Amino acid sequence: MEKVKNKVNKLVNRGLDRHMRLAVTGLSRAGKTAFITSLINQLLHSGTNPRLPLFTPAREGQLLGARRVPQGQLHIPSFDYDQGIHALRSSPPSWPVPTRDVSEIRLELRYRPESGPLRLLKDTATLYLDIVDYPGEWLLDLPLLSMSFVEWSAKQRSVLNGRRRELAEQWLTEISELDMLAEADERQIKHLSGLYTEYLHKCKDEAGLHWVQPGRFVLPGEYAGAPVLEFFPIVSDKLSESALSSAPPNSLFSLMKKRYDYYCEHVVKDFYKEHFSQVDRQIVLVDTLQPLNAGPDSFNDMRQALEQLMQSFRYGKSGLLRRLFSPRIDRILFAATKADHVTPDQHPNLVSLLQQLIHEAWQTAAFEGIDMECVSLSSIQATEPGNVDHKGETLPALRGTLESGEAMLMYPGEVPARLPGESFWQSQGFEFRQFRPMPGPSDEPLPHIRIDKALQYLLGDKLK
Amino acid sequence: MEKVKNKVNKLVNRGLDRHMRLAVTGLSRAGKTAFITSLINQLLHSGTNPRLPLFTPAREGQLLGARRVPQGQLHIPSFDYDQGIHALRSSPPSWPVPTRDVSEIRLELRYRPESGPLRLLKDTATLYLDIVDYPGEWLLDLPLLSMSFVEWSAKQRSVLNGRRRELAEQWLTEISELDMLAEADERQIKHLSGLYTEYLHKCKDEAGLHWVQPGRFVLPGEYAGAPVLEFFPIVSDKLSESALSSAPPNSLFSLMKKRYDYYCEHVVKDFYKEHFSQVDRQIVLVDTLQPLNAGPDSFNDMRQALEQLMQSFRYGKSGLLRRLFSPRIDRILFAATKADHVTPDQHPNLVSLLQQLIHEAWQTAAFEGIDMECVSLSSIQATEPGNVDHKGETLPALRGTLESGEAMLMYPGEVPARLPGESFWQSQGFEFRQFRPMPGPSDEPLPHIRIDKALQYLLGDKLK
Repeated sequence: MEKVKNKVNKLVNRGLDRHMRLAVTGLSRAGKTAFITSLINQLLHSGTNPRLPLFTPAREGQLLGARRVPQGQLHIPSFDYDQGIHALRSSPPSWPVPTRDVSEIRLELRYRPESGPLRLLKDTATLYLDIVDYPGEWLLDLPLLSMSFVEWSAKQRSVLNGRRRELAEQWLTEISELDMLAEADERQIKHLSGLYTEYLHKCKDEAGLHWVQPGRFVLPGEYAGAPVLEFFPIVSDKLSESALSSAPPNSLFSLMKKRYDYYCEHVVKDFYKEHFSQVDRQIVLVDTLQPLNAGPDSFNDMRQALEQLMQSFRYGKSGLLRRLFSPRIDRILFAATKADHVTPDQHPNLVSLLQQLIHEAWQTAAFEGIDMECVSLSSIQATEPGNVDHKGETLPALRGTLESGEAMLMYPGEVPARLPGESFWQSQGFEFRQFRPMPGPSDEPLPHIRIDKALQYLLGDKLK
Repeated sequence: MEKVKNKVNKLVNRGLDRHMRLAVTGLSRAGKTAFITSLINQLLHSGTNPRLPLFTPAREGQLLGARRVPQGQLHIPSFDYDQGIHALRSSPPSWPVPTRDVSEIRLELRYRPESGPLRLLKDTATLYLDIVDYPGEWLLDLPLLSMSFVEWSAKQRSVLNGRRRELAEQWLTEISELDMLAEADERQIKHLSGLYTEYLHKCKDEAGLHWVQPGRFVLPGEYAGAPVLEFFPIVSDKLSESALSSAPPNSLFSLMKKRYDYYCEHVVKDFYKEHFSQVDRQIVLVDTLQPLNAGPDSFNDMRQALEQLMQSFRYGKSGLLRRLFSPRIDRILFAATKADHVTPDQHPNLVSLLQQLIHEAWQTAAFEGIDMECVSLSSIQATEPGNVDHKGETLPALRGTLESGEAMLMYPGEVPARLPGESFWQSQGFEFRQFRPMPGPSDEPLPHIRIDKALQYLLGDKLK
């Protein structure tokens, strides 16, 4: 009888165990790896973590603790938490090595249900939390699904101005005389696609621009060296639509079009099917400080990239996404990272700036059934707030160690509370420096700013 | 009317164009990349190539020429022919960088059919040749499909003697006290699997051993860092079968077993389904010289690895392979590579040794409907034959440049014509050195030994 009771209990427990898939994304260098490392670290310490006052289940003692358990999808690379902690706890401390592909990790959270059916049945309950990390660049590819190769080419042509045109110069020169209707030559395509990919890399690395398409070209993962990542847009406007539609099947144009279609069908759709559609909640990390530092081109580009990225969460009843993949995300948190790199008095501005960046796109679109919130945070605090005396005035400042090893007390400047205009860029009042993580004892949770607020929004209601 | 005729012609042509998928494999360092580079090079020059006397379609002038065309499977990395040629034609010349995963390339061969239905219909015909390159190590995993995790563990236990035991020492020490029935700990598994993987790497790199399982552990490709490559065999024989069969689901044993099953089901089967079952003809490259140099352990290990590898071609009517994947390979060529690293008088011995290595496994098995042949060849000739005078006697010798840059005239020794016994190993009469490729003009086909013989066996009948 006791045995039967145990069995029933087990079945009931299993039935009531909950799963949640939290996806973390952001454009390169937004701080995904640091965020996930800290999030896991806070949760692993959650039983006794005094640093989570804004995370109700931890503050109220409902959350009993967390531990790492084997992940569900065995073919997906594991998020390397140990490597991250090792880097942060080394001497001198360093930032974790960024991930470049999808990775995941699973935590088991034990909690005491405060009410509801779980409370009646047992004392403790379990939430399995899958944390999935993927590059934000992959989301920039969604619009491709509703564009033909010719339409996509026209879109790319329209942005080849100013700095982008400079960076694309070599590629543009070499394709200027190209006959798209001539027979395709493998070597030529490889060479020209290489130049196009170089241009995309330069956009990111030299100009701090984020909006690059196709997104996989800069983060190829398993497709490195495969023809599906070897094509480029047609930027000549000399070709008529009828000439293109009757292009011979072995022409350069037809080959490019075929690869573009294959890219959409396999690379883009596969990501949405296999990863995106499984996600319950999403956090999007945004580094607003670097673009503020880099100038108006970089800032406006990030804004455009964010708008594109948000299309992935815009699944109105009849939207393409809904039809194709039935996504189920019900909450998104947008987080301005690296808040510790500005003085605390600037944090409200950071949030307000992020809201401005997001809200316009948000309000004009059909984000049905998705709840959204903005926060500013620091995944792993690298500076301490302080003060400096300047001409008899006491000003807020930051104290930290630069990545070069130099100790520094500085005032980085004011974050604009609204989208910055001409005057902000002309005065260039902002100086953003990279600090290294602070050293700390390895048995204590990592210092952070408002990770607990993020946890509350993303997990709080699931631990009741 | 002319138009209709053209259309009909096109349809007929398309219907008669032929495809052939040729797979090239071999254990690491067997010379796959050099072989494929040379094969492509010879075919690209085939219209006027005077170096292919043994390849009938080239000698008789039926083969009009070849060119590279876009490959069929867009998500598979392309074989980088240009990089290979660039390395070989650099000054000083160097060997192409080896591939580490699957890659492919497609050639279009135009030929003049000499007879048969093609001859009646048109003057020229086309054969599309897909050349696919995959690591031979992947074939070593086939036997896993018919073994349970416990059976596979027992097999691994049985080989942990001598040198292997030494190389595995750290891993063996750390698992000696391991309780396989205790609850699994992610970090511990990652650490111990890492040690096991290190042992496999050491087998290959330090001891020149080839038989390592699971094969993907040493060449992970897209699975790098994924849990499916994080398990290891149970080598303790203390656990009874009944204890194991009732192991709790969250125990170390159950987790390992789950990963092993996942590995078989997804990694191993996927390779056979997606790649192997599409192959029409196969060439297996074997470097017999390095193991002859390294000693009896290395040689016997290679022999064992070859026997395992040959199981993939053993698809009798009721075999596992036939049932699972319906392979269609009808010809296999086994090629002893690096023939230019011994004097020409030793080439017959090289073939005879390879036949001995292969034939035993061949004759005891059911290789129904597959034709097999052995050859010795040099993909890219790195030495020239010469003579030395030694005590009044004229001896055959090799002239070449060692990888260190030193010019060398040497006699490497005799290759045993039969599987070498005690006396061979005791006299150690063989000295194998690595030569660098010879420089040559870039507009001429690469020098080789008997690539044309290989082409004749693999392609000759398809170009009639």
